[in-house]
Amino acid sequence: MNIEELYKGILEGNRRALAKSISAIEDQHPKCEELMSRVYKHTGRAHIIGVTGPPGAGKSTLVDKMAKEFRDRGRTIGIVAVDPTSPFTGGAILGDRIRMSGLSTDKHIFIRSMGTRGHLGGLARATSDVIRLMDAFGKDVVIVETVGAGQSEVDIVENAHTTVVVEMPGLGDDIQAIKAGLFEIANIFVINKSDMEGCDRSVREIQIMLEMSPKSPDEWEVPVLKASARDNTGIKELTDTIDRHYEYLKQNNLLEELKYKSLKYNFQEILKEKLMDFSFDESRKEDQNILKSLKSGKIDPYTAAENVISRFKVEKK
Amino acid sequence: MNIEELYKGILEGNRRALAKSISAIEDQHPKCEELMSRVYKHTGRAHIIGVTGPPGAGKSTLVDKMAKEFRDRGRTIGIVAVDPTSPFTGGAILGDRIRMSGLSTDKHIFIRSMGTRGHLGGLARATSDVIRLMDAFGKDVVIVETVGAGQSEVDIVENAHTTVVVEMPGLGDDIQAIKAGLFEIANIFVINKSDMEGCDRSVREIQIMLEMSPKSPDEWEVPVLKASARDNTGIKELTDTIDRHYEYLKQNNLLEELKYKSLKYNFQEILKEKLMDFSFDESRKEDQNILKSLKSGKIDPYTAAENVISRFKVEKK
Repeated sequence: MNIEELYKGILEGNRRALAKSISAIEDQHPKCEELMSRVYKHTGRAHIIGVTGPPGAGKSTLVDKMAKEFRDRGRTIGIVAVDPTSPFTGGAILGDRIRMSGLSTDKHIFIRSMGTRGHLGGLARATSDVIRLMDAFGKDVVIVETVGAGQSEVDIVENAHTTVVVEMPGLGDDIQAIKAGLFEIANIFVINKSDMEGCDRSVREIQIMLEMSPKSPDEWEVPVLKASARDNTGIKELTDTIDRHYEYLKQNNLLEELKYKSLKYNFQEILKEKLMDFSFDESRKEDQNILKSLKSGKIDPYTAAENVISRFKVEKK
Repeated sequence: MNIEELYKGILEGNRRALAKSISAIEDQHPKCEELMSRVYKHTGRAHIIGVTGPPGAGKSTLVDKMAKEFRDRGRTIGIVAVDPTSPFTGGAILGDRIRMSGLSTDKHIFIRSMGTRGHLGGLARATSDVIRLMDAFGKDVVIVETVGAGQSEVDIVENAHTTVVVEMPGLGDDIQAIKAGLFEIANIFVINKSDMEGCDRSVREIQIMLEMSPKSPDEWEVPVLKASARDNTGIKELTDTIDRHYEYLKQNNLLEELKYKSLKYNFQEILKEKLMDFSFDESRKEDQNILKSLKSGKIDPYTAAENVISRFKVEKK
């Protein structure tokens, strides 16, 4: 892996360099850190849009339609389709999707899917790096699409400037719980599959929940839109609203704040990982002994962690 | 908060002591660490069962029925209902459920629900502690129920000896993706709501996917069961299968392995948190400077993390 070549390739907008770099990130190649460290200063220009919601809501189709609409407005697009529940990656599922959506013929759209590939923990971190790569590559808009309802997608949207939560007309009680969880992160709600029964009721329910949370007068008012990706309705309005949210962020100096928040978040995640690598190493005798004591029940996990930390404390004196 | 009192209370099977301790864990009370550190040596006796699956599959009702069946077999039960998507906790949602299920009159069942309460990151850790508390309290069986499809529920089942994945008859393509994600963690599949159309097809689909993964002859064969929690069918078979899986683990020396794996996992999570607290502190001048450089773009997150780490490296020389 030639870092210099990949680095230059990305800045020059070379698609192969981008694809190779993303694969290296997924493989956790040790040289990625150097690449990312250099790439970072060329980031910060793209509008990062998170799209999330429960399974079955039709996020993929909606994202495809959004991408087409953005293209009609002259913007270049990167799409990162993250599936925290899938062990597949790189293209196994995505291949069909690209072929179906017809986006593959447009060289200004770059799509990449990411699955867990066995190391769930690193998915949010890897996604963040891939977003930065697409940003540095020159994409105007980077859409991060993620399935699910849980912590992983909250971690993933940590990098987004605008978060779109996609719902579908009512599915029962459990869905209500999901809505509650997604309320804090949504800048825009879309009820997709608006031709289905119960769409207007779902819109009203979400609006009522939104009205319940207190709000300052100049705060962004979360809109609840209707769309049907299949029938291509509501896509223009959605894209308009996304643009309007971006303008709102810029005019209220919130974009810089969001960017810093995400930088800090990424820094902390990277630091955590580095600290672990640095302070605990199973190939070292002393660390093997800690694990042995843990296994035999001689010490508990809290005491074991304190034992590791105490080494540093002594050194700091 | 009197640690001594809570500690003794838990070992004596005092329900109020258990409830108070769980609340303290949820509130991240600083003294919890001491409590947990002492409680740990009294754990390891309970059979920990994880129940997970997509929203709408009817996990809660199924867990209630399982709990009743286990009670009929003379076992005491702890239930931790974790909802990574809900900001509610302690009882907001659970109150109704307990009243409905009629489990509240049985003093050998202890139910507790946990939501995110604003600190998503710590939910898996807190859940793990609550499981240990119920174990030390003397519960024979601890059922951890979690909604969702993503990393959080994988983290949560990290502590389980037997993981039951609940599905419902076919819901389309996205559900397939979830199934793929849950395949690695499932010891038992249950298609709940077996009276719904498409149940047998769902069973077959999962069986086909299971057959595709290579297996050694003495490996546990993941069964695909049918149940209807509402009609109370299939519950006895499910409970039998859970017991059979526990026996399998014990007879093949896998239980001790699982217990060690979960201890190690918890140790690593605790260590990560402690390392962060110890090495980075926003109230310190030097750490504020790192954040400032990060904000201004002078350094990237990787370099920032390396700067923090380098302090320790110098000290180690």
